[in-house]
Amino acid sequence: MLRIAVLGCGRIGRMHAENIARHPRAALAGVYDTYNPAAVEVSEKLGVPRFESAETVFASTAVDAVLIATSTATHVDYIEQAVAAGKPILCEKPIDLSLDRVNVCAARIADTRLPIMLGFVRRFDAGHAAVRRAIADGTLGELHQIVITSRDPGMAPDAYIEVSGGIFRDMTIHDFDMARFMLGEEVTEVTATGARLVDPALMERCNDYDTVTVVLKTASGKQAVIVNSRRAVYGYDQRVEAFGSGGMAISENRRMNNMQLYGADFTAQGAVLQNFFIDRYAEAFAAEIDAFVDAVETGTPVAVGFEDGRLALLLAEAAIRSVAEGRSVRTSELG
Amino acid sequence: MLRIAVLGCGRIGRMHAENIARHPRAALAGVYDTYNPAAVEVSEKLGVPRFESAETVFASTAVDAVLIATSTATHVDYIEQAVAAGKPILCEKPIDLSLDRVNVCAARIADTRLPIMLGFVRRFDAGHAAVRRAIADGTLGELHQIVITSRDPGMAPDAYIEVSGGIFRDMTIHDFDMARFMLGEEVTEVTATGARLVDPALMERCNDYDTVTVVLKTASGKQAVIVNSRRAVYGYDQRVEAFGSGGMAISENRRMNNMQLYGADFTAQGAVLQNFFIDRYAEAFAAEIDAFVDAVETGTPVAVGFEDGRLALLLAEAAIRSVAEGRSVRTSELG
Amino acid sequence: MLRIAVLGCGRIGRMHAENIARHPRAALAGVYDTYNPAAVEVSEKLGVPRFESAETVFASTAVDAVLIATSTATHVDYIEQAVAAGKPILCEKPIDLSLDRVNVCAARIADTRLPIMLGFVRRFDAGHAAVRRAIADGTLGELHQIVITSRDPGMAPDAYIEVSGGIFRDMTIHDFDMARFMLGEEVTEVTATGARLVDPALMERCNDYDTVTVVLKTASGKQAVIVNSRRAVYGYDQRVEAFGSGGMAISENRRMNNMQLYGADFTAQGAVLQNFFIDRYAEAFAAEIDAFVDAVETGTPVAVGFEDGRLALLLAEAAIRSVAEGRSVRTSELG
Amino acid sequence: MLRIAVLGCGRIGRMHAENIARHPRAALAGVYDTYNPAAVEVSEKLGVPRFESAETVFASTAVDAVLIATSTATHVDYIEQAVAAGKPILCEKPIDLSLDRVNVCAARIADTRLPIMLGFVRRFDAGHAAVRRAIADGTLGELHQIVITSRDPGMAPDAYIEVSGGIFRDMTIHDFDMARFMLGEEVTEVTATGARLVDPALMERCNDYDTVTVVLKTASGKQAVIVNSRRAVYGYDQRVEAFGSGGMAISENRRMNNMQLYGADFTAQGAVLQNFFIDRYAEAFAAEIDAFVDAVETGTPVAVGFEDGRLALLLAEAAIRSVAEGRSVRTSELG
Repeated sequence: MLRIAVLGCGRIGRMHAENIARHPRAALAGVYDTYNPAAVEVSEKLGVPRFESAETVFASTAVDAVLIATSTATHVDYIEQAVAAGKPILCEKPIDLSLDRVNVCAARIADTRLPIMLGFVRRFDAGHAAVRRAIADGTLGELHQIVITSRDPGMAPDAYIEVSGGIFRDMTIHDFDMARFMLGEEVTEVTATGARLVDPALMERCNDYDTVTVVLKTASGKQAVIVNSRRAVYGYDQRVEAFGSGGMAISENRRMNNMQLYGADFTAQGAVLQNFFIDRYAEAFAAEIDAFVDAVETGTPVAVGFEDGRLALLLAEAAIRSVAEGRSVRTSELG
Repeated sequence: MLRIAVLGCGRIGRMHAENIARHPRAALAGVYDTYNPAAVEVSEKLGVPRFESAETVFASTAVDAVLIATSTATHVDYIEQAVAAGKPILCEKPIDLSLDRVNVCAARIADTRLPIMLGFVRRFDAGHAAVRRAIADGTLGELHQIVITSRDPGMAPDAYIEVSGGIFRDMTIHDFDMARFMLGEEVTEVTATGARLVDPALMERCNDYDTVTVVLKTASGKQAVIVNSRRAVYGYDQRVEAFGSGGMAISENRRMNNMQLYGADFTAQGAVLQNFFIDRYAEAFAAEIDAFVDAVETGTPVAVGFEDGRLALLLAEAAIRSVAEGRSVRTSELG
Repeated sequence: MLRIAVLGCGRIGRMHAENIARHPRAALAGVYDTYNPAAVEVSEKLGVPRFESAETVFASTAVDAVLIATSTATHVDYIEQAVAAGKPILCEKPIDLSLDRVNVCAARIADTRLPIMLGFVRRFDAGHAAVRRAIADGTLGELHQIVITSRDPGMAPDAYIEVSGGIFRDMTIHDFDMARFMLGEEVTEVTATGARLVDPALMERCNDYDTVTVVLKTASGKQAVIVNSRRAVYGYDQRVEAFGSGGMAISENRRMNNMQLYGADFTAQGAVLQNFFIDRYAEAFAAEIDAFVDAVETGTPVAVGFEDGRLALLLAEAAIRSVAEGRSVRTSELG
Repeated sequence: MLRIAVLGCGRIGRMHAENIARHPRAALAGVYDTYNPAAVEVSEKLGVPRFESAETVFASTAVDAVLIATSTATHVDYIEQAVAAGKPILCEKPIDLSLDRVNVCAARIADTRLPIMLGFVRRFDAGHAAVRRAIADGTLGELHQIVITSRDPGMAPDAYIEVSGGIFRDMTIHDFDMARFMLGEEVTEVTATGARLVDPALMERCNDYDTVTVVLKTASGKQAVIVNSRRAVYGYDQRVEAFGSGGMAISENRRMNNMQLYGADFTAQGAVLQNFFIDRYAEAFAAEIDAFVDAVETGTPVAVGFEDGRLALLLAEAAIRSVAEGRSVRTSELG
């Protein structure tokens, strides 16, 4: 049994804690949160210890590994402390909002051989993963184009948007990782377009965009298109299409149930989409824990590494620069 | 060029006339209707001769074959006359409402080698035909079950229903033929259930049913289920499912267009079904003409013969008896 | 917290135990199995007590309610004991294979006001439940027809089939309950057809059928069709269609993932169906526990009662008689 | 009856001739082709006159309107001659490969009030048109994003590609028009990406691309993405997605038939796509003729005008420049 402690007892941390608790080869070693009542609630429901500080987690001999689900600004410090303590890490995305800070961290932990896994959960979605397999096993022939549609069901609160780091670092970052996952080849050029159509006033104030399109290109000419919106009234729109010389694979949306309705004016109407990311990716979050436990136990490389987290952030930086300067940005410009 | 004359210029006859006119290896030899204005209209639009009587059609040396789309009661006489005149026949379903009369006709034309084809158009639908191919070519393994869903978009006028011969002879007859087409083996037992749910008063008056379920069984144990309703508000519901030891094939409904709509309360809502049988089976009607021309030109057997028309009617008789007597009826009871 | 003990630690009992353990308003009070190692394994993984006998479960003051997931033959005894002990019951289907024995039990427990819920889990499937809601809230208008397609992914072992009580009591019983759930009105007539197409030798030996079609009728003329097979190579086929004067609702199958594949010879090919009933109905099993906890806590009637279990078995008996005697059987003949 | 003559008897001209012949309010006034045998064949099959030259068509008093389906290089001349002759025009796309030449033509015919309609047939597809209606009638709220996927089933012959004017003028031009049709607002900025992945050697030789992505932007910030490939093994991929504040509408692909196949390893596999553009858009081509006849008869504006043809070509020019210079190109740069 791999004994994993969870740092952060917000809704994501709590969900991870439950998944660890029910995992057949893992045990929940305890939980910690700066806001103590949250930690108390989780520790009581799941019957596990509550840690008084992050330091005590890293120091504990009853903890084999850590899952970091605290606020973004703390990730880098906790990663460095966990590395120092020799604990394998599963860290929520993004590593940090600052590419510079991530680069510094990367240098500091460069020598570690500890498993450090990034929580790009969408890679573990059964449908998206099946698309990746269809690419990897040659079913689609040579890959030519990727189209990722990713629209949120609704705007986050203004306060969140204001400190989110902007749509590219906060939301598109998932799609940058998905594009890299699918392309199997590094992106060399980023061209981004941004518009303020959902909440123009807020976007203006934050110098941010709510409706964006990004085109990524690789050295061999493969193209990936990302289509984002901060608000889709029909729900959490999550699709991935891969097109190649041998065919096409599409990972489709998921609905609340499988009923189709026929009426006087329409046919085969489906239910609304699974709307909340924790529901939509519920099985993916469980599969992510499973992959982490596997990697630590078997000593095989983690499915998504620190460098994957860094490169997704680098693409976000390139997109920001592309919109600001109205031109295609080569990733080599950002180092 | 096969020169085909059309008897009957109602909406079905007219549609057949247009399909013949545009067929690359057929020519429309002329049209006839007891109601002269209908024949005049078609002959003028399509620029073809109008015949003064059915007799002149059969006698004409400019006519190689005939398509009979007149009222049901005239079919048997016209078939016999066309056989006497040596003209190949494509006749609309049903042959007649009386099984006895059909049996007499069958005896009279028993010696002919002329192509006599019955217009069970659904066999020529691309989707239904693909299901049949999946059975015939072994894709589905050994066939076990057929489910035919066939619901009309709305009640025909009372006057029509009253002389229709009842739902089994008028509507289910298509499904009896479809079941035979799919089963590839004769039906030995018929069990039918009827209810009056759409228009109870009319059904009571006509001693008819508007909502029926029929189970057919073959000697080897294969089962076919037919589900009928006289009125589906969502349109003309036409589906066929074949299930076997190797898989399943379903011929799905067809919609007015391929748009899917997503709104705040629903996803992927489709357009209404193609509602009118002439639209729904437009390509099938054209393919039917093509199959007739082929059979006549090449001397190969017609796809749907007189005996197919007779056996579909026999199953209708068995279903009527099954409902009336509340028991399964063996087809051998009807000869 | 409702403290529920689980009797029976086979795969179903174990799954129920896990669902109870993670339910926010329930606690797993302990487990019991005649085969002790099974109980030991579950009690250790979930950290709950293991009971030495069923009697100690019923006697325990630390147990508020029981879930019976033992072998079918024990259900009736355990139900009677639990009633005597005043413990609310959630019992797996079927109550028993003998309608007589169930009738005797019904008489014995007639006076209890304890919640006794039957585990017809399919009622809790989100898709099937949405169909039921579309009927209940009037979306479909007046209900006319139900079509239930229910095919197992493969034959159970011979040894299981031999003691299963036959396809109608073992497998179709779920569909009988589903039909009753959808119809909202009692079935008055049953007409069943059986064939031996999947494994004729085994079926012959057991005097059983592997391919069946059942037509149910209510007093008002509503029709329900059940289409069953013991083996569908494409997986666990679970569909429900409801048709009424106002429209149609279909609960569709569920696949392993949402990828659609396009190749040179095909389009939009979906993944295989969720194949194992515990996976297919995973969320339904959790919802079933939730409904039970709700009913016990709030004192509201259980969603599926003992009488529902008895009536489903009665329809199975009617179907068996219908096949044996080749006629429609009225449910009133069976009391 | 509107008497329409067809110039050009290739496969497109012939198809138009047949559609005119069967149109209830139009008549085929005759056909012309520089390659006389093609004209002879069509005139004989359809029983209409054959013209000896384009000049005789324009001069004929038996011709009310002309349909121009000759080679692209002749379009501008024929348009100018038809205008001089006072004949309404339906002209196949593109007007010409040279924007300069089109601008000169535009100036020359600036004063005419004759109906001049461009054959952007996809606007008349029932699915695409339904998407447009969902935008126009407010169903989708304020429009934000359009995604057009348009992939050919296979490379045209090298000889064709070499003189096609390049992918943007030859193939994407349909999508530029579709984007304009959907956006309801002019495009102000074009960013295009091109790759050589299908046939790199040919593309290198022609300085062309076979795999392109274009992002269009309007003044109000609306975005349209076009995804093109010259070869999709699964067929002629033709989809349009419109996303707005009120919902989403997708016009889906069309298949050869409506069968879905289930096997041991897959579910609901569809038939191949309708592969040939004349089949895929068969009904749209007929609807296009209908719209032209309507416009001429009623004096209402044509659905797609000369200026639409010019603006689509202008977007193609902008895309070519964008790829060449690696930057976004404002349409105002091209006049």
